[in-house]
Amino acid sequence: AWKGAPKFSDDKGWSFKPRGRIQVDIGGTDAPSGLSKGANASLGTATEVRRAWLGFEGTMPGGIGYRFDADLTNSSLALADAYISYKANRNLTLVLGNQRPFTGLEDMTAVLNTTFMERSSFSQAFGFERRVGIAANYKTKDVLVEAGLFADDMSSMSADTDKSWSLNGRVVFMPRLGNGTLHLGASAQYHDLAGSVTSTRYRTRPFLHTADVRLVDTGTITATSERRYGVEAAYMTGPFHAVVEGNAITAVRPGLSNPTFKGGYAEVGYVLTGEKAPYKGGIFDRLRPAKGIDEGGIGAIQVNLRFDHLDLNDSDIVGGRQDTAGVSLVWAATSNLRFTANYGHLWLRDAAITADGDDSYTADSMGMRAQIDF
Amino acid sequence: AWKGAPKFSDDKGWSFKPRGRIQVDIGGTDAPSGLSKGANASLGTATEVRRAWLGFEGTMPGGIGYRFDADLTNSSLALADAYISYKANRNLTLVLGNQRPFTGLEDMTAVLNTTFMERSSFSQAFGFERRVGIAANYKTKDVLVEAGLFADDMSSMSADTDKSWSLNGRVVFMPRLGNGTLHLGASAQYHDLAGSVTSTRYRTRPFLHTADVRLVDTGTITATSERRYGVEAAYMTGPFHAVVEGNAITAVRPGLSNPTFKGGYAEVGYVLTGEKAPYKGGIFDRLRPAKGIDEGGIGAIQVNLRFDHLDLNDSDIVGGRQDTAGVSLVWAATSNLRFTANYGHLWLRDAAITADGDDSYTADSMGMRAQIDF
Amino acid sequence: AWKGAPKFSDDKGWSFKPRGRIQVDIGGTDAPSGLSKGANASLGTATEVRRAWLGFEGTMPGGIGYRFDADLTNSSLALADAYISYKANRNLTLVLGNQRPFTGLEDMTAVLNTTFMERSSFSQAFGFERRVGIAANYKTKDVLVEAGLFADDMSSMSADTDKSWSLNGRVVFMPRLGNGTLHLGASAQYHDLAGSVTSTRYRTRPFLHTADVRLVDTGTITATSERRYGVEAAYMTGPFHAVVEGNAITAVRPGLSNPTFKGGYAEVGYVLTGEKAPYKGGIFDRLRPAKGIDEGGIGAIQVNLRFDHLDLNDSDIVGGRQDTAGVSLVWAATSNLRFTANYGHLWLRDAAITADGDDSYTADSMGMRAQIDF
Repeated sequence: AWKGAPKFSDDKGWSFKPRGRIQVDIGGTDAPSGLSKGANASLGTATEVRRAWLGFEGTMPGGIGYRFDADLTNSSLALADAYISYKANRNLTLVLGNQRPFTGLEDMTAVLNTTFMERSSFSQAFGFERRVGIAANYKTKDVLVEAGLFADDMSSMSADTDKSWSLNGRVVFMPRLGNGTLHLGASAQYHDLAGSVTSTRYRTRPFLHTADVRLVDTGTITATSERRYGVEAAYMTGPFHAVVEGNAITAVRPGLSNPTFKGGYAEVGYVLTGEKAPYKGGIFDRLRPAKGIDEGGIGAIQVNLRFDHLDLNDSDIVGGRQDTAGVSLVWAATSNLRFTANYGHLWLRDAAITADGDDSYTADSMGMRAQIDF
Repeated sequence: AWKGAPKFSDDKGWSFKPRGRIQVDIGGTDAPSGLSKGANASLGTATEVRRAWLGFEGTMPGGIGYRFDADLTNSSLALADAYISYKANRNLTLVLGNQRPFTGLEDMTAVLNTTFMERSSFSQAFGFERRVGIAANYKTKDVLVEAGLFADDMSSMSADTDKSWSLNGRVVFMPRLGNGTLHLGASAQYHDLAGSVTSTRYRTRPFLHTADVRLVDTGTITATSERRYGVEAAYMTGPFHAVVEGNAITAVRPGLSNPTFKGGYAEVGYVLTGEKAPYKGGIFDRLRPAKGIDEGGIGAIQVNLRFDHLDLNDSDIVGGRQDTAGVSLVWAATSNLRFTANYGHLWLRDAAITADGDDSYTADSMGMRAQIDF
Repeated sequence: AWKGAPKFSDDKGWSFKPRGRIQVDIGGTDAPSGLSKGANASLGTATEVRRAWLGFEGTMPGGIGYRFDADLTNSSLALADAYISYKANRNLTLVLGNQRPFTGLEDMTAVLNTTFMERSSFSQAFGFERRVGIAANYKTKDVLVEAGLFADDMSSMSADTDKSWSLNGRVVFMPRLGNGTLHLGASAQYHDLAGSVTSTRYRTRPFLHTADVRLVDTGTITATSERRYGVEAAYMTGPFHAVVEGNAITAVRPGLSNPTFKGGYAEVGYVLTGEKAPYKGGIFDRLRPAKGIDEGGIGAIQVNLRFDHLDLNDSDIVGGRQDTAGVSLVWAATSNLRFTANYGHLWLRDAAITADGDDSYTADSMGMRAQIDF
């Protein structure tokens, strides 16, 4: 069978599929001149290979599975998913290895399928990443429960002095409601920064990834642990979807204030060509055109509107606030070839300072992506 | 079907093939003792895994394709071809991603199929490399037109301050002439070094890659842009081929001289075992034996003679001159297993200085390569 | 056919198989507090992705083969096996490229199949590694002869100044004896450290790899060459095996003493579930359960006891001595999914010094591994 690449399988439970993805981005960001920290040098138009991944996934008899993705972006190696899984029964799966620790609806949605080129500001700012650990996923038609115990991300944990660990969980209810599906979820994380260096940092890029700059940034702050809570709600009916997520993270700093930073977004989207909003099992799924360009059709076209908010000011920490109004156009030419164009208008406060001493201003970002995957 | 590795395909347009190559080299270079810049430490006999690549390529219904090669040589990661392609019609293909920017006949020939272990001196000296960009290729039986707009190579462009870009084009006519094929081509590049660091450098190794030394070298020179022109001519008839290429690159240096450096080579070759000189569609192709060692034959044997010239002296820049007379023996044991032995005698002028203060001398290089690919 | 992953082949001699492995470890090491060189920071409990490899292997008509494994562990790239092979006849195979230089029974056994999580102390201490070279393997039913000429490991040899090389050989007799198989072998290496830096170092971790610390360590010592000798003996009958190996390495230091360091281990093991001790052709093989969990069975369970000795004291060099008593439990849930738990008690002398000035003490290590491969 072809799923982008050939998927080989037999009736005993063996299967194997190569995996890969290439994302090529072009983006431009406009902001006031004279920004502090040399930020302007990172602005303007830039091209980027955003992701170049190769990998394998497969299953073995007895409910055993694995996935292994190598991220080769910018000729710098990282491992993405790299895990062994065991399907204990129809509902319960155990996963051991490098994986996403249940961080919420958008973050658990594959980056191939997000409605904007980049995920929400809080997803970047609050340090969402893959970590090595062991997790259990319990799933029925209407309920998803995920919990796991994790060490650090793979490159950090290779240092012996890094003893940090986290406990993560997420619960989702996804009943049918009217003609659509309701999604209600919550997630939590306790993250112990038990290393010899106990610090953290919250910051985010302005809308796109092409500009390697952060206008809002708490800087490095001492902390011994983090607590994070998230809520998520969505409704999908026919080609329409609406989604809202919110997150709050608290840096625990013995002897100092414990600031809490907050972020969230609200989004509505509509598939103009009539395909159903792609949602499946607690995450958004691949937008598959009813008739792709390979069949003489025009593919699927989805338009999305989003308001994104991030507040890195609390207590005595002034990291800045970034609000973004964004619009995106997704064109799935086929199920495996996809183009995204999006524009964001940003309002920044307490941000990187301009030459005039101004720390509140607006910025604009426009980006496009071409993506193939298999 | 087997093309080194299995090629999976169906009749709707899906295909998929793993890719890989290993080249193991041994080489020795002899030059005067006491060379400046510690060059002698790099000479003598050395072994090298010249290339170790893994990757995938495939096609999807609708004329969509991709290629993805990871270069793992020396345990240091780089991406080679990493692109998405779209075959708009029988003649026109668009390519987006990391690719070779139409630099000329030899440079566009896959490194698996070059007649010598290393490409010509100007190919190294003038900074031929893959870049991320978008390109169009128009091809008929007799004509090839290629043009593209490129950002920088993938590791350079990951720095936000790198704003360099280039416009590249190549035109080839390749009519039948007599009992053979004539190849006439020209290429051009405008390269804007629009980064915060605006400099360039031209230099080349002596014949082989095993010695990580350059006896001719302009050193780093300030420049804001580069212009490059190339011409190429070849004639293939039966087992014989003759080819000549020339290139000139000008470093544009506002307020300073604009030196132009030149290089070229002329080559003749003959397949002793009688197979046709392998040429196809504007580049040299794989030498396929009529009867490989897998069929009880002796494979294909090709002998090649080349004179290579590089002049890095112009205006007030003295980078040196390097002339090379080379002979190579290529043995394609099978279509996928190939051995190359080659020898080069070099004449150097204005080159790295010896202990005696001599900057003009000769050097000799002898190298062998074993290569498998799929 | 399925061998973890699908193996594609035809009747002309073509074959191709993807390869991969993931090992996830957790381990804890307990030692006296106040160790010198900050060693305690590396102790305690740690998690690690021990190996994450992807690759390909295949054959081509005419006896040609290749293997290519990329080691992506900790997001840091290295090449493991990367070679071209040629099966000249039924008994003789030539191998060119990056490969293990015949270092002994345990080191030549794939790390997927070793009875403990880590190989013996001398295997680490004496610098066993893959090197680029050319080798010949001659094998009959009862005899194995291996010899090769090697340059250095791939990342070291990329420096031109590294001119080191080694000559390696190994001979094994493996006749049937009674109801079992006897294994008697010897290996030798001459290693010329002909680089501009001529030094070496011998050291080893305490039992596990999770703690990136060496309590015994000669430090860097000048040397111009190394000589190494190894002997190996084993007996396998039914589910039982016994094995003993010993190695001695001499650092040749003109004008200084030539110290000889020694290491060895003795091991017995038994497959409780009754499968035969897995041995084949001069190395230990994969433990394949008669009835894996995929067939409703419990897999194969093997218990192993080992005493390991390493002495890095000789002449005027005091690197320390490390003795380890270890027990391991291997559970092959299926042929491709395997779990190992092992415990080691270590006696250290002349080792890293404690705050009390003590250089002789004991340590304890307990580790577990989950492993999938294809």
